[in-house]
Amino acid sequence: MAVDVLVSEVGPRDGLQSVKRTMPTDRKHRWISALAEAGLREIEVGSFVSPKALPQMADCAAVVAHALTLPNLRVAVLVPNLKYAELAFAAGAHLITIPVSVSEPHSISNIRKNHAEIIADVRAIVKLRNERYPGTEIEAGLATAFGCTIQGVVPEADTVRMAATMAEIGVDTIGLADTVGVANPAQIRRVFKSVRAEVGEKCNSAHLHNTRGQGLANVVAALDVGIRTFDSSQGGIGGCPYAPGATGNIVTEDLVFLLEAMGFRTGIDFEKLFEARRVLQDGLPGETLYGHVPDAGLPKGFVPASAGGPA
Amino acid sequence: MAVDVLVSEVGPRDGLQSVKRTMPTDRKHRWISALAEAGLREIEVGSFVSPKALPQMADCAAVVAHALTLPNLRVAVLVPNLKYAELAFAAGAHLITIPVSVSEPHSISNIRKNHAEIIADVRAIVKLRNERYPGTEIEAGLATAFGCTIQGVVPEADTVRMAATMAEIGVDTIGLADTVGVANPAQIRRVFKSVRAEVGEKCNSAHLHNTRGQGLANVVAALDVGIRTFDSSQGGIGGCPYAPGATGNIVTEDLVFLLEAMGFRTGIDFEKLFEARRVLQDGLPGETLYGHVPDAGLPKGFVPASAGGPA
Repeated sequence: MAVDVLVSEVGPRDGLQSVKRTMPTDRKHRWISALAEAGLREIEVGSFVSPKALPQMADCAAVVAHALTLPNLRVAVLVPNLKYAELAFAAGAHLITIPVSVSEPHSISNIRKNHAEIIADVRAIVKLRNERYPGTEIEAGLATAFGCTIQGVVPEADTVRMAATMAEIGVDTIGLADTVGVANPAQIRRVFKSVRAEVGEKCNSAHLHNTRGQGLANVVAALDVGIRTFDSSQGGIGGCPYAPGATGNIVTEDLVFLLEAMGFRTGIDFEKLFEARRVLQDGLPGETLYGHVPDAGLPKGFVPASAGGPA
Repeated sequence: MAVDVLVSEVGPRDGLQSVKRTMPTDRKHRWISALAEAGLREIEVGSFVSPKALPQMADCAAVVAHALTLPNLRVAVLVPNLKYAELAFAAGAHLITIPVSVSEPHSISNIRKNHAEIIADVRAIVKLRNERYPGTEIEAGLATAFGCTIQGVVPEADTVRMAATMAEIGVDTIGLADTVGVANPAQIRRVFKSVRAEVGEKCNSAHLHNTRGQGLANVVAALDVGIRTFDSSQGGIGGCPYAPGATGNIVTEDLVFLLEAMGFRTGIDFEKLFEARRVLQDGLPGETLYGHVPDAGLPKGFVPASAGGPA
């Protein structure tokens, strides 16, 4: 089935690296298989990073190898620098995302690199890809594109400029991330429009957080200006949640409901998505999972767009 | 201050009638005063209904009397029929909302009246108002305007027809309610547009639920088609919540953040709104309050539109 919107599941990376305990590798495999079975077509399955810093991600190569056996799945990973990008290329990931903070203080705090250093790194990664791994796609994920907990307000011009730099270097796609959950729908429309005026449809994805309950409202705004790829995590795990009931990442289940109800086909089957949620919960017993649709269920008479429902 | 969007707080009615215990009258007074002090300009302070059915609302006349002493506050109440509308008029409420279900099975289940009966009741209430209480405003709140748990899908034409009937009878304003939390943003835009094509700006308010996490996404859609009055409840109380973290009513705190961040002035002060939340929590010890913004706080450097912030 053709899809109208790509839901890119980031739970196995963004979610599991935020959970204190480590999900066993075979549980990760089961969860990722269940997500793919539900119709997810892109999954960020892990990050290649220092196993000392994030022991939850130490099995990333094995997880990538498993994910590559699943049909119709684009396998994405996150890497912080050239060294780990080499591992990701070697592992055969289809898509490599490099986080690049628009806020320089955030960049220094998060990956201990200033702008010049991270830009040099992206350049080296693109060069390596061009020379040795031409089939692998590279995404620059512009963190703090809408605001920052350290810097505060992030000027729109800074986000546009960093996107232009990434396009010039030769990344394939550029995503804008509301890393700390401060964006509002008016800003989402403005910033995506400005960035696309500069780099075109190369800027095609949004990574939005629900920290202040604005996640799906911001999705609506991004849809309005043509964005058709959205990151989310099953059960809302990861992305710095606050209690009670506050999630960091937007919840895959609620996002898919929004999209399918609006008439956007995602290719995702709700029953199988709820089954994947059970697999996730079994793999993280006692961990709080978020989401409204799993609790409330689908409305009576609801037909998703992917099942031919009304737009 | 002029406001761009009116936030109509329904917690003292919709919230408190859903909570099992009864908040003491003096606590209600304190909470409503704190909300008014925070800048809320319209509060649905209670409903005139059978005290046997809803003992939490038995003190409605006293609460209205208190609310009428507060400056700059429109005092709203809900009434199910002519008998209780008379009490509401006599009490001096500024605005009387009559719930009218677009779904007839829901109407029968909720207030034991079919369409003909509730329409006759609205007609009688409008007649009484015209004859004896010309200063009081009447709103028809069209329940299940976007779908129903009993009937399932509610055809758009049914909602338009009921709105037209209400306009013909002579109500002053018509609100559309997503009573069971099934609406999506595409539908919100469609239905509001169709209703306004029929009755004009008389249809000016939305009562949205967050049952499936779509509440604020639907607000964005309603704003897009010109709606400028939104019901919400502080702490998200009421409106049939599901656990965990799932709210029924949209949360006033999160709604006000959305609006102020988008550049819509509400006239509401966040610090005083959070203070009102503490008054609410003191009045309902141990009761779960929802909302993301109260947990996460305002973003660093955030300036609300009402305080001159950037649009």
